[in-house]
Amino acid sequence: MQQAAKRANSNIVLALDLPSDKPEKLFLRAKSILEQAHPHICGVKLNRHLIFPLGLFGDVQELLIQARSYSLPTIMDCKINDIGNTNRIIAEYYFEGGFDAVTANPFVGWNDGLQPVFETAKQMDRGVLLLIYMSHKAAWEGYGQRVFVEKTDQTAYQYEIFAEKALKWGADGAVVGATYPEKIRDVYSVLGEKVPIFSPGVGAQGGDIEDAVGSGARYLIVGRTITLAKNPSKAAEDLKLVAQRSLRQTRQTH
Amino acid sequence: MQQAAKRANSNIVLALDLPSDKPEKLFLRAKSILEQAHPHICGVKLNRHLIFPLGLFGDVQELLIQARSYSLPTIMDCKINDIGNTNRIIAEYYFEGGFDAVTANPFVGWNDGLQPVFETAKQMDRGVLLLIYMSHKAAWEGYGQRVFVEKTDQTAYQYEIFAEKALKWGADGAVVGATYPEKIRDVYSVLGEKVPIFSPGVGAQGGDIEDAVGSGARYLIVGRTITLAKNPSKAAEDLKLVAQRSLRQTRQTH
Repeated sequence: MQQAAKRANSNIVLALDLPSDKPEKLFLRAKSILEQAHPHICGVKLNRHLIFPLGLFGDVQELLIQARSYSLPTIMDCKINDIGNTNRIIAEYYFEGGFDAVTANPFVGWNDGLQPVFETAKQMDRGVLLLIYMSHKAAWEGYGQRVFVEKTDQTAYQYEIFAEKALKWGADGAVVGATYPEKIRDVYSVLGEKVPIFSPGVGAQGGDIEDAVGSGARYLIVGRTITLAKNPSKAAEDLKLVAQRSLRQTRQTH
Repeated sequence: MQQAAKRANSNIVLALDLPSDKPEKLFLRAKSILEQAHPHICGVKLNRHLIFPLGLFGDVQELLIQARSYSLPTIMDCKINDIGNTNRIIAEYYFEGGFDAVTANPFVGWNDGLQPVFETAKQMDRGVLLLIYMSHKAAWEGYGQRVFVEKTDQTAYQYEIFAEKALKWGADGAVVGATYPEKIRDVYSVLGEKVPIFSPGVGAQGGDIEDAVGSGARYLIVGRTITLAKNPSKAAEDLKLVAQRSLRQTRQTH
């Protein structure tokens, strides 16, 4: 991801989360958006919006080949949260399907939980991004709750505990919603530059690039602002420039 | 589920979570196991083990038609845990694909979280089962943690909070691992007969039917003990009889 970001001079990850439509239409739109936006992005994220209608081993393969032809890493946002045996199978399918990384929910824990996912990723030289604080309205219910920590006999926020796990488990990225810049700041204070923060929720969901980057986000995951734009290339370029300027300012401040 | 359980005089839900193999072999095995076990079960649960290789709109359709021909309800164990927009899309695909219910993780909360899933289920007359305490070893890390509750100024276990949400949100079922009968007991004390407890983890994972049922589980989700048996029909029948006896005993005790 770092190499791709340097090459494109961009920290924008394109989320190809298109609204429901006929499979052939979805495929052509996704292909076209990727083609237009690719000079201004450093990665591509897919979710069930395309996996279901196109099929992981169907037309999704074409999109992954297209992304690779632009040297763009690909993330499957599957939010793994099952028992170990099933988690391993999910990760194996997505990695064998060609994805470079998967997302997973640290809530399920390590032993017989996410351990098999990290093991599989290591064996296949792929990445695991952990969800630390999501971008939606009810994120406070789970990610924002206060948890009693036996060891310290005190409470800590759930996302602080998850950030510690990202360090301990050797995650390749931490996902924190751009809609909560103060949470990005808190998570960054735990992770520093050791685990990069990926921030979804910019634009349609209400997140602001400058706030997110200023708080410590390294990559911005953007969907609708690019995918629903009349000119996806121009939209991606604009976002890239804002992100680049924010990154420069943040580095100068620190 | 209740009607199917009465009809078959069984509270065993078959989990068709087969180990990885070639798609055509997996399909034939799943079809054969379902055919053999169907007189002794009250439902079928699928997971990514079959969705990936067979495809939701591919051979999975054949299995769902087969289950319907036996009047067996079907559960997709997708453990939904994304933002509202994506959750709705996941639920719609599985419901349109023919599943009668989905599983979801209450950790993501209601607003812009699971609300769209419950709405979609209501519109399409389907069910939602919530994960309350999973069956794997690390379940304590998330499901078993103690959470500070603002309203009472006290801590409560995560699974107690989830059980309250199952009541409040009108869940059609609560999933609690058979590997933790004491958690089934605690969850049952919150839910009573209002939300039935589905209990996975019997057999291969170490759970015991009598303990689970005695603690309040109404349905037992069983995979490997049936799917890896030489005689799946006999295995399902044996489990059914143990479960029926345990249910009778439990009712007499209460």
